[in-house]
Amino acid sequence: MKKIEIVQGLLAANNATASGNRALLDRHRCLAVNIMSAPGAGKTSVVLRTIAGLGGSVRTGVIEGDVASTVDAEKVQDAARAVVQINTKGMPESCALVADMVDAALRRMPLDRLDIVLIENVGNLICPSEFDLGEHLKVVIASTPEGDDKPLKYPLIFADADAVIINKLDLLPYVDFDMDRFTHAVRDLNARAPFFPLSCKTGEGVAEWVAWLRDRMHNA
Amino acid sequence: MKKIEIVQGLLAANNATASGNRALLDRHRCLAVNIMSAPGAGKTSVVLRTIAGLGGSVRTGVIEGDVASTVDAEKVQDAARAVVQINTKGMPESCALVADMVDAALRRMPLDRLDIVLIENVGNLICPSEFDLGEHLKVVIASTPEGDDKPLKYPLIFADADAVIINKLDLLPYVDFDMDRFTHAVRDLNARAPFFPLSCKTGEGVAEWVAWLRDRMHNA
Repeated sequence: MKKIEIVQGLLAANNATASGNRALLDRHRCLAVNIMSAPGAGKTSVVLRTIAGLGGSVRTGVIEGDVASTVDAEKVQDAARAVVQINTKGMPESCALVADMVDAALRRMPLDRLDIVLIENVGNLICPSEFDLGEHLKVVIASTPEGDDKPLKYPLIFADADAVIINKLDLLPYVDFDMDRFTHAVRDLNARAPFFPLSCKTGEGVAEWVAWLRDRMHNA
Repeated sequence: MKKIEIVQGLLAANNATASGNRALLDRHRCLAVNIMSAPGAGKTSVVLRTIAGLGGSVRTGVIEGDVASTVDAEKVQDAARAVVQINTKGMPESCALVADMVDAALRRMPLDRLDIVLIENVGNLICPSEFDLGEHLKVVIASTPEGDDKPLKYPLIFADADAVIINKLDLLPYVDFDMDRFTHAVRDLNARAPFFPLSCKTGEGVAEWVAWLRDRMHNA
């Protein structure tokens, strides 16, 4: 039982840190969004489209989580008001962000001058579902080339999502992806999350996602 | 230090079990291939193309690893001589196969009547790189819609690969994927792994991959 006890102790400690993160964000009236997906589904592209869609009046910070590299932070640094890159390589958890990492990142951000923090999690459909980061919203991105069976194989991350983005709609004519099969599979796990089919390449559908997110900011 | 000691103990135990798996496979003159990729890169499609390419004279077993569902086992059951599905949901490690799971699966397979076992790992570019399963070859599949920067972000899995497959070549005209940038990024991590660009949809490039794998069987 030793390992299980330690794991539960770690998760309890993570939840406490996550609650602290959420309280810190709330004090600054800053909405935090945990963006999760498989590698290459388009998290960074969604972040860039979201910042552009929200417009200059919404001040956006970004936390970039990756095992290694600063590729994503470099891509968003011109668009965001503040960017912190977290590299998880060599950390006890390398397959997901945990609340401690986000705590450290938030302390390096000018929260009193930000309205929203987009947290781009490590590319992974499994580990990120286990760790509360202190976010207000969990968003999962699926992309059409991955296939429509991902909710069956990675149920937890879809069950807990507050919104599901289906990216790379522009590739739909070239791949085997049945939108009805995908949305039904998610609905079996999650009765409430809205779907946002979109293409970061063409911009199709981005406005609907951004409008929904803007509503969440006003209701926060 | 307690957590780190326990993790190291688990990895040592995993390596011992993996060595046992490899000895068992060697006694049966059975080559085992650990196939790893992000979700939706096409592991199951590569398995199906590989079985068809090797032809009826090569007797193939498949171990399917997924967090949940039997979707992949159902897809390959007609093509393979033996299939075992492993669901990792609720196990101490859910984000990758470990040697214990493969040990249990191998004991359910008719190894004396198999020439090769294809082990489809859980869809993940991080956790599977940490666990030796007792395989003889590690193969990583990247797919063109994921983008060419994945080796920078998930270096370990590419560094340890014996071969790198680049799937979904048919989507190359529609996505931003620079083949030279991708292969250079892998070469910086791994001097020896051959590249197999292919399309499971059209069949382009599959023969080269299958020929290489067939050579490994003869040299095993």
